[in-house]
Amino acid sequence: MSGLKPPLIIVNFKTYMESTGRRAVELARKCEKVSRELGVNVAVAPQAVDLARVASEVSIPVLAQHVDPYTPGAHTGSTLIEAIKEAGAVGTLVNHSEKRLRADEIDEIVKRASSLGLEVVICANTPEVAASLSAFNPAFIAIEPPELIGTGKAVSKAKPEVITDTINLIRRVNPKVVVICGAGITNGFDVEAAIKLGTEGVLVASGVVKARDQEAAVRDLAEGLLRALKS
Amino acid sequence: MSGLKPPLIIVNFKTYMESTGRRAVELARKCEKVSRELGVNVAVAPQAVDLARVASEVSIPVLAQHVDPYTPGAHTGSTLIEAIKEAGAVGTLVNHSEKRLRADEIDEIVKRASSLGLEVVICANTPEVAASLSAFNPAFIAIEPPELIGTGKAVSKAKPEVITDTINLIRRVNPKVVVICGAGITNGFDVEAAIKLGTEGVLVASGVVKARDQEAAVRDLAEGLLRALKS
Amino acid sequence: MSGLKPPLIIVNFKTYMESTGRRAVELARKCEKVSRELGVNVAVAPQAVDLARVASEVSIPVLAQHVDPYTPGAHTGSTLIEAIKEAGAVGTLVNHSEKRLRADEIDEIVKRASSLGLEVVICANTPEVAASLSAFNPAFIAIEPPELIGTGKAVSKAKPEVITDTINLIRRVNPKVVVICGAGITNGFDVEAAIKLGTEGVLVASGVVKARDQEAAVRDLAEGLLRALKS
Amino acid sequence: MSGLKPPLIIVNFKTYMESTGRRAVELARKCEKVSRELGVNVAVAPQAVDLARVASEVSIPVLAQHVDPYTPGAHTGSTLIEAIKEAGAVGTLVNHSEKRLRADEIDEIVKRASSLGLEVVICANTPEVAASLSAFNPAFIAIEPPELIGTGKAVSKAKPEVITDTINLIRRVNPKVVVICGAGITNGFDVEAAIKLGTEGVLVASGVVKARDQEAAVRDLAEGLLRALKS
Repeated sequence: MSGLKPPLIIVNFKTYMESTGRRAVELARKCEKVSRELGVNVAVAPQAVDLARVASEVSIPVLAQHVDPYTPGAHTGSTLIEAIKEAGAVGTLVNHSEKRLRADEIDEIVKRASSLGLEVVICANTPEVAASLSAFNPAFIAIEPPELIGTGKAVSKAKPEVITDTINLIRRVNPKVVVICGAGITNGFDVEAAIKLGTEGVLVASGVVKARDQEAAVRDLAEGLLRALKS
Repeated sequence: MSGLKPPLIIVNFKTYMESTGRRAVELARKCEKVSRELGVNVAVAPQAVDLARVASEVSIPVLAQHVDPYTPGAHTGSTLIEAIKEAGAVGTLVNHSEKRLRADEIDEIVKRASSLGLEVVICANTPEVAASLSAFNPAFIAIEPPELIGTGKAVSKAKPEVITDTINLIRRVNPKVVVICGAGITNGFDVEAAIKLGTEGVLVASGVVKARDQEAAVRDLAEGLLRALKS
Repeated sequence: MSGLKPPLIIVNFKTYMESTGRRAVELARKCEKVSRELGVNVAVAPQAVDLARVASEVSIPVLAQHVDPYTPGAHTGSTLIEAIKEAGAVGTLVNHSEKRLRADEIDEIVKRASSLGLEVVICANTPEVAASLSAFNPAFIAIEPPELIGTGKAVSKAKPEVITDTINLIRRVNPKVVVICGAGITNGFDVEAAIKLGTEGVLVASGVVKARDQEAAVRDLAEGLLRALKS
Repeated sequence: MSGLKPPLIIVNFKTYMESTGRRAVELARKCEKVSRELGVNVAVAPQAVDLARVASEVSIPVLAQHVDPYTPGAHTGSTLIEAIKEAGAVGTLVNHSEKRLRADEIDEIVKRASSLGLEVVICANTPEVAASLSAFNPAFIAIEPPELIGTGKAVSKAKPEVITDTINLIRRVNPKVVVICGAGITNGFDVEAAIKLGTEGVLVASGVVKARDQEAAVRDLAEGLLRALKS
């Protein structure tokens, strides 16, 4: 299993029934198929319960959706970074708008993940938050204006200035961070727009998970990515 | 896989390294072995990441350590009740002192778990909280004074009045709830004392997980339970 | 300053500009005027910053909107129960849908408030939560289905069964608790309906605070209460 | 009332009984007296309930200990930024180790405070968190390793490298932020050490609030500050 390499598409499975349990494995296989056929990097982020099974069934990178900032010990109900690593994850999303974290928790998670060789994709809701969190030196920052999540209005089209502001502010703090684009991505044109604005990938959820044809939806995104890279 | 039946011993794996990943499966197998050999009900509660694998490897009941109060949907980083069911859990712990919940969340979780045929073990830190939460009509209440958790001082010996008060207060609100005893249980004598005070089982963590010989530790607890039941 | 006596109207100032600072004092004076003129119990709950000033300016009971479950000590940013008492509050709301608490926190707050001679009004979102929290033996429970808060649809009219279910479930757990009715109360007819269903008061916010004529709004509620009591 | 000017001493009243209610006003007067007599900037941060009264009784700058990231509206139990302004505060502490906030909340608070002309002192537990939060462009960052808070071991002496690391990391992200030093400050020598390491003030709590002679404790800190500035 390889790590996360830009440019890439990350599919967040959230806790939809269409991406839980057996269907999490099926969706991951569709993502793997598209990734192999088109030569595009696609990673998947199933919920914790499905992580080990998905990671054992596909060869594309698998991420957790969240981890807790704890060392091993007495933390009933939490998700240990060591546990997602042993389950086969190459890293984790953190600070998604549906699971926000405190600044000190993000600091701790990035440090611990780094020491375990795992990659962290930090989500941020504004350019200022993105710049702030880039100081923790994560591999990736995903900019997701929460007002666009799940709307089908891609940030790359509805608020392109959010993306360019984010990239500019992050560059001043940490030029090494890879910026990807979330919120409202539903088709290949959204991906194309996001890449042309300077991002190196997208984070997508309902646009794939809730699609009538999940495989076609991933394929459309991947083709958009290829178009943007060629132009 | 059968459901939870009192009297029983529940082993909470927490997030110790000794009960994570491959070692979660090994510990569950030891619990299963003791359960079968002595004819004592033993259930295990691994962290979410290890739940599916443990449930597929043992035939004793498996519980989640926590679930979130959500219906399927956009809840990145949460653990769906439907997901733990599909993974093979028969129910879940909730409101452990290390993962406390709001009253409205517990209400929602118990209602949803019940509609899915899953059992809920609610943890409570005081007799008053135990009585309050018994109004939600869970299958089990585990009383765990947090000041004793992990101390090796069993509540059944250090504060027996906490257990009898809990049972008395719960009986006035909901006579059907099964009361079990947590916090500081480390050996068979603690279990024996807990049962004689009127509880129908124990919730134990470090006393088993961190034991030099985990199987011997579970066996000792199970023998204590048998002694109490015979006397 | 007298304590809370049913039947009563509690006006929750929330954090509206129309009930902050100088305007908190003015609104409290209007409530006091109506209370005195009509002989109806009216209490007010301004935000913490305005508590002392409001309590020093009016003679009707003043409540905090929230307190933290802590003893005096190192708790930067929290509101101490001792502090609201010294500021002149007779008690506090807790567990409002906009400031939910964990069951163990509510237990601690009710115990500490009681030892300091302060009264607690616990808010609950469902009949089951109301019954559960009545086990803590607060003076008052306010039932507020969150889907009706701020809608102008009074629970006493839109969902009368929620109120009767709440009263029935609470009676089995704790017959001494006074039940009041929140969520969507906007006029005297709502109050009348709530009282006739068996509650002994209402908790109201935007219906008064955001009214064009706040005094007239309180007067209308008070007249509804009087009508219900006479019939 | 003037704003916050470095170099300065900020006294955090937390929720100690020795700095609550009437005693909050008394302690603020002692701080004011020392400030005037020695010509040293001293600011005080009482809890929300005491804020208005303290601000009306002293002429030194008064800060809130915390504010919530909300615009005026339906936020029962929260502290509105507009409310602390009207109460006379010149700004607020945020993200204290006893009241940590999410990165997105800090972003919102700094933006709203700035638009209202209030100053924000952000607390941070590590150099990395301090650098991250300096991207939000607050007036002040207070570095407070939580393991030293309340210990009487001043960070300026026990871990001087934490302070120099913090200053260096912040300078790369935002050279304009004023860095002050918290955690374990108990006497003038601690202040002197902190200033010599490059900070422009201290944040102190129990070292003053719990002192047998509070005024002498503040005076000792102020004299340490003066010594450091002269040398």
